[in-house]
This record gives sequence, structure tokens and C-alpha cells, in this order.
Amino acid sequence: MSEVQETRPRPETLREHLKQVQDMLRKHRLVEHLVHSQDMPRHELVESLVHKQNLAELRKKLDVLHPADVAYILESVPLAERRVVWDLVKADRDGEILLEVSDAVRESLIASMAPQELVAAAEHLDTDELADLAPDLPGNVLEDVFRSLSVEERQQLRAAMSYPEDSVGALMDFDMVTVREDVTLEVVLRYLRRLDELPDHTDQLFVVDRDEKLKGRLPVNRLLVSDPERLVGELMDTDVVRFTPQQNADEAAQAFERYDLVSAPVVDASEALVGRVTVDVMVDFIRSESETEVLNLAGLREEEDIFASVWKSAKNRWTWLAINLVTAFVASRVIGLFEGSIEKLVALAALMPIVAGIGGNSGNQTITMIVRAMALGQITPRNARGLLKKELVISLLNGLVWGSIFGVFATVLYHSIPLGLVMMSAMALNLIVAASFGVFIPMLLHRFGRDPAVGSSVLITAITDSGGFFIFLGLATLFLV
Amino acid sequence: MSEVQETRPRPETLREHLKQVQDMLRKHRLVEHLVHSQDMPRHELVESLVHKQNLAELRKKLDVLHPADVAYILESVPLAERRVVWDLVKADRDGEILLEVSDAVRESLIASMAPQELVAAAEHLDTDELADLAPDLPGNVLEDVFRSLSVEERQQLRAAMSYPEDSVGALMDFDMVTVREDVTLEVVLRYLRRLDELPDHTDQLFVVDRDEKLKGRLPVNRLLVSDPERLVGELMDTDVVRFTPQQNADEAAQAFERYDLVSAPVVDASEALVGRVTVDVMVDFIRSESETEVLNLAGLREEEDIFASVWKSAKNRWTWLAINLVTAFVASRVIGLFEGSIEKLVALAALMPIVAGIGGNSGNQTITMIVRAMALGQITPRNARGLLKKELVISLLNGLVWGSIFGVFATVLYHSIPLGLVMMSAMALNLIVAASFGVFIPMLLHRFGRDPAVGSSVLITAITDSGGFFIFLGLATLFLV
Repeated sequence: MSEVQETRPRPETLREHLKQVQDMLRKHRLVEHLVHSQDMPRHELVESLVHKQNLAELRKKLDVLHPADVAYILESVPLAERRVVWDLVKADRDGEILLEVSDAVRESLIASMAPQELVAAAEHLDTDELADLAPDLPGNVLEDVFRSLSVEERQQLRAAMSYPEDSVGALMDFDMVTVREDVTLEVVLRYLRRLDELPDHTDQLFVVDRDEKLKGRLPVNRLLVSDPERLVGELMDTDVVRFTPQQNADEAAQAFERYDLVSAPVVDASEALVGRVTVDVMVDFIRSESETEVLNLAGLREEEDIFASVWKSAKNRWTWLAINLVTAFVASRVIGLFEGSIEKLVALAALMPIVAGIGGNSGNQTITMIVRAMALGQITPRNARGLLKKELVISLLNGLVWGSIFGVFATVLYHSIPLGLVMMSAMALNLIVAASFGVFIPMLLHRFGRDPAVGSSVLITAITDSGGFFIFLGLATLFLV
Repeated sequence: MSEVQETRPRPETLREHLKQVQDMLRKHRLVEHLVHSQDMPRHELVESLVHKQNLAELRKKLDVLHPADVAYILESVPLAERRVVWDLVKADRDGEILLEVSDAVRESLIASMAPQELVAAAEHLDTDELADLAPDLPGNVLEDVFRSLSVEERQQLRAAMSYPEDSVGALMDFDMVTVREDVTLEVVLRYLRRLDELPDHTDQLFVVDRDEKLKGRLPVNRLLVSDPERLVGELMDTDVVRFTPQQNADEAAQAFERYDLVSAPVVDASEALVGRVTVDVMVDFIRSESETEVLNLAGLREEEDIFASVWKSAKNRWTWLAINLVTAFVASRVIGLFEGSIEKLVALAALMPIVAGIGGNSGNQTITMIVRAMALGQITPRNARGLLKKELVISLLNGLVWGSIFGVFATVLYHSIPLGLVMMSAMALNLIVAASFGVFIPMLLHRFGRDPAVGSSVLITAITDSGGFFIFLGLATLFLV
């Protein structure tokens, strides 16, 4: 897909490109505004000339940019201007750019395109890229695209689309170069020279037998430094990191990271080569996984187009707010149980958020630790007990240290030693609750096959809030009121 | 560094390896226990034989594992067992494995090694790898290592160590293969064949002139498919993504992701080639950046060795707890201002956490959005006002919707329409506060040259907590009490 010679700016100049495009767009908008306001009809012609010049200049600018940079610019301008830019992009680059933009922006672009434009855009893509785009395409467009493919491509597309989103199969491509083990490097070199170019990220050739079964790998760099008279079979590695299409993409990403891979073969149950995954796709996957994690922590369901409508953005945020309001409601009712005590000793109202707050912070620290260790596979049943014990000891330590400080503070402020003691005990107890659930919640979620990274934080905060209020107000009711 | 032929297990079997090692370690511990307890002196000899067999078996297992996998096992076992495993690892692999383990675990391993062991381990490393390890090495070890290097290596090490941690210079290596533009591919191929092997991740040769100035790049794949009679100068790309050593590694990572790079040249101010960065290092960087982000969000200062001592772990978590307790203290004093009102209308105590809570959640959503958009460079002065307006509208919408629900709830529960109205207004107002500061805080931090991802979340929660209490209790005092 690199027939066009694109200029790839240094990162520091990318923002300058954006600024230039923004300036051009502003000029364009000004002119449009003048043309549409009927005040100066005489100048219409001139203005529309200026207008055309403007757009031509912008088009020229976009033509030399790398698809990823056009995608960046599309993501960085508001909807109306995005459409202007998108209309100027050469049709044969549409497909590539659609692959580069974020999901939310892709949606907005596809919505603005006519079916035949979409079909044309899709035609410039490989089947593995098509599979990424397909879920966002309207049904009739997809049918047209499908009809334009060869039998082999249809098969590949069907296969690629059949795998779940986070599997190796969904990330693999079909651009492998294969060789036989009984030929010399000379033959391999002659064979390669007959190709126009090698697929991107070809750092190794896959050695297969007559049945396409994977026998080994021949690194391109070894091909270059070795004697051309030697046989592939003598020089290949048989120890190849390989994946299956059904495998979790997370596992593949960890292997790429661990073994510094650039590409890796994907094989089916009979060890036949069916595709390959490359590091650029893995980098995108790793980045998007970590973004999802950060977004989920803040309760954003998905990546948001910063220029999305208020309505769309609000919907993206509601699930989380609703969940949190339910837990806040529960906490509020817990406090309601103790209204009598608060009425008698109003200091409780001022102190109770401290107890709840430290529990939430500490619980979230424990959960983050455990979720990370679980993702790395470091938590085995034998480790788990030791970890729980350690977290409990830390929380007891923290409870005594911080509890004492705030106990003294409560005593001094409200002239009551018993109140100080209740404060200290409540903080220590709530920290122990936080540590226990901080270890249990991710393990339980994992046991039931759920992703422990999602929802753990809400749950622990709900527990430490309601729990903190209950423990503190309960102790106060027992000993103070 | 890949002279040893390591077996790289499929990811799914890595956990099995860990389990096997754990079983061997348990056997080892049992035997040790028997030997040390003096109950069966007659069998001592036999036992120590079993012991030796055990360890030999474990050593054999470790020898065939990839350094990254040994690192994984070291990270996954408690301190005492970690030392047993570490002692069994062949000395010439120590250096590589030290590079693979997490910072916290590295510290624990280095602490257990004698100076001469450390010097020996360092001797097997490239200078760029040495630079990564150097900050963790004791001063006298570093001096010994330095003395063992050639003049050129010393220069490289000094250069690599002089760059700040998150710069391109700190991540680059010196394994570039360079060619001149006036030679034929035939000559290049002959030159390469004289080398034993090419450096890892050599996907392109760097074309330089007599002064080492970068003129272009020759992709290895193009070298393979092109006519050997042609000149390098005819076939090279002059449009090369290049970095400077001083440049932020984040920018380089974005460029690797954007342009699907495998390697990229690093040049100095005069465009002379001084090193290269490769995608494996970038993947590690991206992963560690995202981990840091997640850890910081939970208030963990740094990655924690899950088997670290209670004391170390507690220290890692204290900064955050202390900051949060200060903000909780402020919020508590805000409530203290209104103790009179709460005494008269105790329902306020039960309702106030809801107002504070929704503000915190909503503010964190806004901040996460803005910080992401800022990291991608999507926020320009022209966008900023539009974004603020949008966030304000969303928060007003949310405030009215959720405020009404909780307003009705307060009215029904406490039989007071004025209370319901105060509840609704307070929620709407606090959400507006959250949206405004959610946009302002990251922008202010950025203006003052701080990383907006660090600390934003604490600040917004502090503001929406104290603000929420103040708004709600203030309104209640004005209109209800």
C-alpha cells in the first residue's frame, strides 16, 4: 500500500501541518461566509476563484501527507471542517485513511460517504484490512465489495471476520512469503528478485512443506549474510514462536514484547500456515488496550471523538455516572440509618468522609497491584495467600499510622478522646476491608471469567464508601452516643 | 546477544514452566528443611544427593529458557526462592536477564550479587544496554566496567548515559549498518556477506556520506528484490523519519506507531548519524508509559515487586494517601463550617456525599478526555473554547437529568420540596464546577510545563469534594435552615 510517495514529517512539525490546515480552513470558511451573505454579489466570481485556489492549496497539502497524518488532521478538526478535508482527499486513499482514524471518527466519515464511494475505498484494501473496516460498513456496501473479490480473497475475508475482536485471527494478515527447505539460498534470492517488492515487515520467510505445514523460519538477515550455496533447511530455525487464530491477542502481544518479534506465523490445528501477525499491528493493539484501560478507569465507555455531539458524548458517560449514583445512593442510605447519632454528635458528619475516602484510595491501590500481577500471570494459588497477608499487614500499618494522626486531630478539634479512638479504629478497620476486597474482587471476577480490570474500581469504592460510613457511624453509635 | 539457542515457549505454556519451576523449588525447600532438621542424620548424604539432583534439574530447565522467560519466573516467585533461581542462572546470561526484569526486581537481584559478579554480568552487554543498567549499579562496579571498555565504547556509554530518561538518546543503540550511495547493490551484498550476522531489527541500511551525514535509507527488502547492478543512490529513500537524541521518546513512539517503523536513525544537529532506535525498544517504552499512567492514576509511585517487603510497598503508597488525606481534611473542615445547619437538618449529612461523588466522577471523565486529546496534540487554542463549551453543556444536561432524579428522591424521602430543589441545584452547579476545572486543570498544568496526566485527578477530586459540600450545604443554609 505504499505506492504513493508520502512525506512523513518529523513529529514536531506535525502540529505545524495541523495549524496550516486549520488556517486554510479558516480562510475557506471566511470566503464561504462572504459568498453566502448576499451583500457583495459583484464579487461573487472573484471570491469563488479565491475559494477554488484555497481548496486547491489545501488538497495539495493533503496529497503529500502520510495517511496516518491525514487521519490525525481529520481527528483534530470539528465536524464541518472535517467534511471539507475529507472531500479533498484523493479517493484511492480513502480506505487507508479510514483504517487509521479512531472508531468514533471513522463512523462520522463513513456516515458522510455515498455507497459507491465506500465500495471504491474498500477496493484499495487488502482482505485483512477490509475485515477491520467491514463491521462499520453498511450491509449493501459490504455485499458489493464481497462480489468484487476473488474466491481466495472471499475465503480470507470470511476467515478474518469470523474471529472475535481480540483474537490473533482478527489481527493477522495474509502477506507471508514462503519457501521450501530443500532449495538453496541462491534459488530463494532469485525467487525474491522476481517479486516487485516484499510485504511490509518481512523480517523472515516461512519455511513450509508441500501441505503448507510450517517447518521453520529463515530470517531475511541470515539470508543476506550466508553462503548462497547453502540449503534453506540447514539455515532455518525450527524453534518458531507461532500462534493460532483462536488465541487471545493479548498473549501474542506479550510474546512480541518478550521475544522482540517483528513478525510471527499463525498456524491452524494441523500446523499449516494460515497467516502472520506483524509488530505494527501489535503496537496498535497494545496502545488501544492501554487506552481502553485508562478510559474505563474514568468510566468512559469508549474513545470519544472530541468533536462529537453533546448527545453522543453524554451517552458515552452515562453508564458510569448511573452506576456511581446507585452506589452513592446506597452510601447515603447507610448514613440515613445513623441520622439519630449524627443529630446528637454533628462532628460525625464532618469526619465520616475521611474514613470513607482513605478506604477507597487504599483499596484502589491494592486492586491495581493485583490486576497487574494477574494480567502478567504472576498470581498462582500458592502466591495468593501470601499476597493477601501482605496487603492486610500494609493496611493495618497504614490504618494505625494515618488513623493515629486523624485520631489526634479529631481529639484536638472536638475535645474528645473517645471520638479520636473511634476515628482511629474506624480508619484501621476500613483499610482492612479495603485490602481484603481489593484482593478478593479481582480474583472473584477472574474466577467467573470476567476481566478483572473492568468494574473492580467501582466495586471497591462502593464497598469502602458504604463500609466506611457504616463502620465509623456504627462504632460512634455504640461507644459515643 | 542471541548466541545461545533458547527455546521460546508458546505463551500458554509459559505458565506451565512457572508451575514446574515452582514445584522444583518446593521439593528443594522440603529437602533443605529435612537436611537442616537434625532428626535423620544417617540420611543426610542421600538427601544432599537428592538436593543436588533437584538443583541440576532446575538449572537444566532454566538454561533452555529465553532470558525474558527467566525474568518472568524471577518476578513470579518470592524473594528466597528468587535467590535460588538466580544462583542457578548461567553467569553469562545475568546481564541480559537483569535488563528484562522490572526495576523493583532488578534492585533485589543486584543487591544479592557480589561486585565481581556484577562486573562479569555487565561485560556481556552492549553499551546501550549497559547504559540502562548503569544507574542501578554500585559506583565501584561501574568504574570497573568502565575501565574494561574500549575508547569508542566509553564514548558511547557516556553519550547514552547523558540523555534524560525519556529521551530518544536514552533508548537508542549503536548497531547501525551504513553504506555509501555510490556503490552498487552487488557491493553491498558482498559487504553484508562478510559479516557474521546483522544486528537485530535491521530492516534498513543507513546511507551516509564521508562525514557520516545521513543521506537516505535502503530498505533490506528493496535490496533483496532489486537488480544488483543498480546503485544505492538510485534506490534509496531520501524521505527518512529521523530523530534527535534530545527529542522526547514519546514523539518517537508516536512516529513508530503512525508510520509502522521497525527502526529509525538518530542524527545530531549536523545531520550526522549517531545511533538508531528499534521497534522492540519502543514497544517496551509504550508499555511502560501506559503502566506508569495506570499506576499513577491509582496513586502508586512506581511499579511494585509483588514480593517486596511490607515496608517498601507501604512507602510506595504513602505519598498518594497523604495527599488524599490532606484534601479529605479540607473537605472535612468545609463540612465543619456548616455543622449548625446539619444539626438542624440532619438529612443534609446523608445527601451531601452524593453531590460530591457525582462531581468527582464527572470531573474525572472530562479530565481523561482532555488529557488524551492533549497528548495527541489535538487541542489548539482555537479548539479549546469549543471544548469547554461542550463540556459545560454536557454537565448542565447531566446535572438536570441526574439532579432531577435525586431531587425527587430527596423530596420523597424527606417530605420536603425545597430540599429536593436544593439537591438538584447543587448537583447541577457542582457538575459545572467539575466541567470547568476538568478543562482548566490539565491546560494550566500544561502551560506551566507539567505533565497534565499526573495530579489532575487528585486536584479535580479535591475541588469537587470540597466544592460539592460547600455548594450543597451553602445552598441549604441559605434556603432551608
